[in-house]
Amino acid sequence: MNLPTFADIEAAAARIAPYAFETPLIENAALNARMGRRVFLKAEPFQRTGSFKFRGACNRILLIPERERKNGVVAFSSGNHAQGVAAAAQLFGVPATIVMPLDAPRIKVEGTKSYGATVLFYDRRKEDREAIAGDLCAKHGSTLVRPFDDAGVIAGQGTIGLETARALTAKNVTIDEVFVPCGGGGLLTGTALAITTLQPSAKVIGVEPYDYDGMRLALAAGEPVRVPAKESSIADSLLPPMAGKITLALARKVVSRIEVARDDDFARAVSYSVRTLKIVAEPGGAAGLAALLRSAAKSEAGAAVVVISGGNCDPDMLARCCASFPEP
Amino acid sequence: MNLPTFADIEAAAARIAPYAFETPLIENAALNARMGRRVFLKAEPFQRTGSFKFRGACNRILLIPERERKNGVVAFSSGNHAQGVAAAAQLFGVPATIVMPLDAPRIKVEGTKSYGATVLFYDRRKEDREAIAGDLCAKHGSTLVRPFDDAGVIAGQGTIGLETARALTAKNVTIDEVFVPCGGGGLLTGTALAITTLQPSAKVIGVEPYDYDGMRLALAAGEPVRVPAKESSIADSLLPPMAGKITLALARKVVSRIEVARDDDFARAVSYSVRTLKIVAEPGGAAGLAALLRSAAKSEAGAAVVVISGGNCDPDMLARCCASFPEP
Repeated sequence: MNLPTFADIEAAAARIAPYAFETPLIENAALNARMGRRVFLKAEPFQRTGSFKFRGACNRILLIPERERKNGVVAFSSGNHAQGVAAAAQLFGVPATIVMPLDAPRIKVEGTKSYGATVLFYDRRKEDREAIAGDLCAKHGSTLVRPFDDAGVIAGQGTIGLETARALTAKNVTIDEVFVPCGGGGLLTGTALAITTLQPSAKVIGVEPYDYDGMRLALAAGEPVRVPAKESSIADSLLPPMAGKITLALARKVVSRIEVARDDDFARAVSYSVRTLKIVAEPGGAAGLAALLRSAAKSEAGAAVVVISGGNCDPDMLARCCASFPEP
Repeated sequence: MNLPTFADIEAAAARIAPYAFETPLIENAALNARMGRRVFLKAEPFQRTGSFKFRGACNRILLIPERERKNGVVAFSSGNHAQGVAAAAQLFGVPATIVMPLDAPRIKVEGTKSYGATVLFYDRRKEDREAIAGDLCAKHGSTLVRPFDDAGVIAGQGTIGLETARALTAKNVTIDEVFVPCGGGGLLTGTALAITTLQPSAKVIGVEPYDYDGMRLALAAGEPVRVPAKESSIADSLLPPMAGKITLALARKVVSRIEVARDDDFARAVSYSVRTLKIVAEPGGAAGLAALLRSAAKSEAGAAVVVISGGNCDPDMLARCCASFPEP
């Protein structure tokens, strides 16, 4: 199995630099006071396409040999990976077909179409998205850009950790804990690999939705396990059926622990992000913030980093979260 | 009349550096494509207290002689200056009394109280906020921290222009136009002074609400003129009764022109900011963005800078703006 290395992340950073933005690390006085320590928010809603997914997609597409690019790329995604792949493909003139669930948020479907991709819908409960995508690839010789279980994709997402650890190390800030949303684990493991390479004492914590805790189950079982989910969650970007093999193998080396959060935790974090941080976060993108907010204040520890991984949230969902949790 | 100088802005930057954040300059691919040029968003919602006002308040309070600080400070404000003064006063242990209109947004009243200030309400249509504040100062020997017509306050706000011009000059970006919200003109003139000193070819444009165009009227008349407003506006942070004498004198030297915008323009800009930029902006804070969005796309000009001056917006107002302007 081809595990990505720190050198792959450095190479990815150089490769995507002309296309991706270096997103800001935002500090908030009210959040620092509440948590009793410095907190740095790595704000990926300000990445191209509104989420971190552009990084991995851009790196992966640039790794496709030139002569194969004309056959196009295929991806399956509830929306952020879809937009990342569609936008990167558009930049390089590569045709893109994206397989999306019928219940994907409207803002994500519109975004994907706006980057010129062809969108095919499937029923999340009845159809197998991997099979649909595999058929498309076989038919047209296209390259499948996996959402997380791919060394090139993970290395691209890891550039978030590289930027964060370099910026904080330059400021002489010691990172104690890093809270990262976890779906399939590409963002989590790439970020953790970069940060623990540069600051080995940092603890990286993945945050999954309750009942969609595929990485927690995989770490316990030693192999990917299908999640027990019966109902959906507002954290639509964190609902893959199971963790990846590569992300699991990497998580065993670089991730400290997994926490789970419920819809109310996500909604509270979205409301806090809008009211206090002034950052538009989607529920899944706010998973790390959700875990931080319910953790105990720490005055002796080093800094906390929270990756806010995406902000592609329909305004109606923002309004619902803010109405449900009106406290600042 | 004591006009602030570029050296005053440099001194203010050093004075407030331990307390204020250097806010990010955010670039957005969709906005660049729409406007046909690079646009840099100077994002003051990420400043301490959620707006730029902390900068001027912090600089002004640090200029009060030590022995006078115990007598406290007084300010009048609809909310952002209120929070800036309250937060800076709290940092330095100075008692603060803030005179606020009865119709100030709830998030701003709560914010001001959260920083430990005493809040006194007045009726915007029947009472004179300057007289109320003057009486308080006379009674307790307190210092009045004016919202804009004060050299120390203007120099503090000017640090926004200093940070922006330095960062863009370092990237070899030539600034063509700068769009800045204008209430009394402190932010506009301080920012314009710093930017035109460092990049003399930059044109700085102030944006005022229609019927609250005090700076435009003052520039035409050669002296501050009371605005003709009969109704309120959703741009609650841009509604002072007239421009200042100092801000007018400075505007004549460093501001290129004034534009006016209506409530629909502000609401459209707030919706665009939430949906596309992922930044929570309040209606008045989005005035510069409103003017940019309705301007023609330019492919030959240099970069545009937009100061998003604040993000203290009740979630209900965000939802209203997004519902009224659902297009991305």
